[in-house]
Amino acid sequence: MGGHRARQAEVAGPHGQALTALSLTLFELRARDGQRYSQFSWRTTMALAHKGLKAEHKAVRVSDKAAIAFSSQDKVPILVDGKDVIPDSWRIAEHLESRYPDAPSLFGGETGHGLARFINAWVDRMLIGRLVPLLAADIVPMLDETDGLYLRSQFERFFGKPLAELAAAREQDIVAFRKLLDPARAAMRAQPFLSGANPAYADYILFSLLQWAHIVSTFEVLEPKDALTAWRERMLDLFGGLARTQTSFPATEG
Amino acid sequence: MGGHRARQAEVAGPHGQALTALSLTLFELRARDGQRYSQFSWRTTMALAHKGLKAEHKAVRVSDKAAIAFSSQDKVPILVDGKDVIPDSWRIAEHLESRYPDAPSLFGGETGHGLARFINAWVDRMLIGRLVPLLAADIVPMLDETDGLYLRSQFERFFGKPLAELAAAREQDIVAFRKLLDPARAAMRAQPFLSGANPAYADYILFSLLQWAHIVSTFEVLEPKDALTAWRERMLDLFGGLARTQTSFPATEG
Repeated sequence: MGGHRARQAEVAGPHGQALTALSLTLFELRARDGQRYSQFSWRTTMALAHKGLKAEHKAVRVSDKAAIAFSSQDKVPILVDGKDVIPDSWRIAEHLESRYPDAPSLFGGETGHGLARFINAWVDRMLIGRLVPLLAADIVPMLDETDGLYLRSQFERFFGKPLAELAAAREQDIVAFRKLLDPARAAMRAQPFLSGANPAYADYILFSLLQWAHIVSTFEVLEPKDALTAWRERMLDLFGGLARTQTSFPATEG
Repeated sequence: MGGHRARQAEVAGPHGQALTALSLTLFELRARDGQRYSQFSWRTTMALAHKGLKAEHKAVRVSDKAAIAFSSQDKVPILVDGKDVIPDSWRIAEHLESRYPDAPSLFGGETGHGLARFINAWVDRMLIGRLVPLLAADIVPMLDETDGLYLRSQFERFFGKPLAELAAAREQDIVAFRKLLDPARAAMRAQPFLSGANPAYADYILFSLLQWAHIVSTFEVLEPKDALTAWRERMLDLFGGLARTQTSFPATEG
């Protein structure tokens, strides 16, 4: 993507010509050494690349709510598109789809839009809460002290246990998590992407959780021969290897 | 639908004109008093109606494998479309979509097709196995003796327990099942159908399980105020109330 330093947003038009948008800025989390660890921001990062849009990425610390108070809420990602301030990865995807209709579609039409909303709810409600507790202990040491204390307290309140205790059972708990992925695994045995022959926003939703896991932990969420492992590799290859190579903010930023 | 007696298949063309297909026959299960209780056949019944196609419905007893041996496999639904014999509800949907491209789309394009395959796997792998055991005891008395014995033995082998024992815990087990529907519930709070503004094949997949439950049992799977109950009502209203009124074969048939 190479968009970290771009001040000017660009859109690849339907015939590859560069269109220039006003300006796009994505606010997302940054760990101590620059890691881009927000899973919801990865949905937006992939969606921007899918649309051929370049954005400036601005780093936010998870405990620094003042930095994003301008958005009238307290979570990233936040996309600033000209005069529009859009929080929430799903709303951002819908915004990109309607604002840049000539760029490749994120939803592939109305039915795909409806079903992608289901996938968004499936990942958010059935998967995140079962994987995040297993890896939460790994993210805290990647943050500076203030962010680490903040996130530890958030996680422990939410999951009701010390992070070390949650991590202790992960070799067993990961087996149940992998079973939850069965419908996606079955689909991927029949087609290369969740969205069919080509990747689209539903793929980025599911991918974002695995990308978060990969950035915060060395723990292997998927088994090597899983059809989802091959899919994840295809996702990492997209957009010139964006999700392999751009996992951190440049050292000079943030 | 009114297609039970039709010998000639008709297609409503894109401008409402009736196109005539060679002939369409759907083989599906029939209970002792005529009930059309095959959930997978309901997927096909709704798909045919969506496409504006009329088919002759032929009744099959679940234990009578000889009656469908012509299809080189042992399960319904089976669609016979002219010279083509197509088993498997998913394959039938794909066949209808490609054979009748001018009739309303079941998938809404390539992305919708890919995501509908996921929904198919989600319902088949995550939901059926959690609801069918709770209601399986109710279906047996609806069948004649041979079919009843056959299905009881199938279910008890598959679920590893006597049907009465499976049913005994259903007041508790239904709570966990309802939670599995959460992603669909969340989607339906934001849009009228799983497929968005209009119903499509993904809706028929999920609906088929609830339609099966409603036909085989008086047990309430959904709570009255569930967003999915309102969606189910919308599904029952489709195609002139097809799924409300055509739950049995005519008394003179089968």
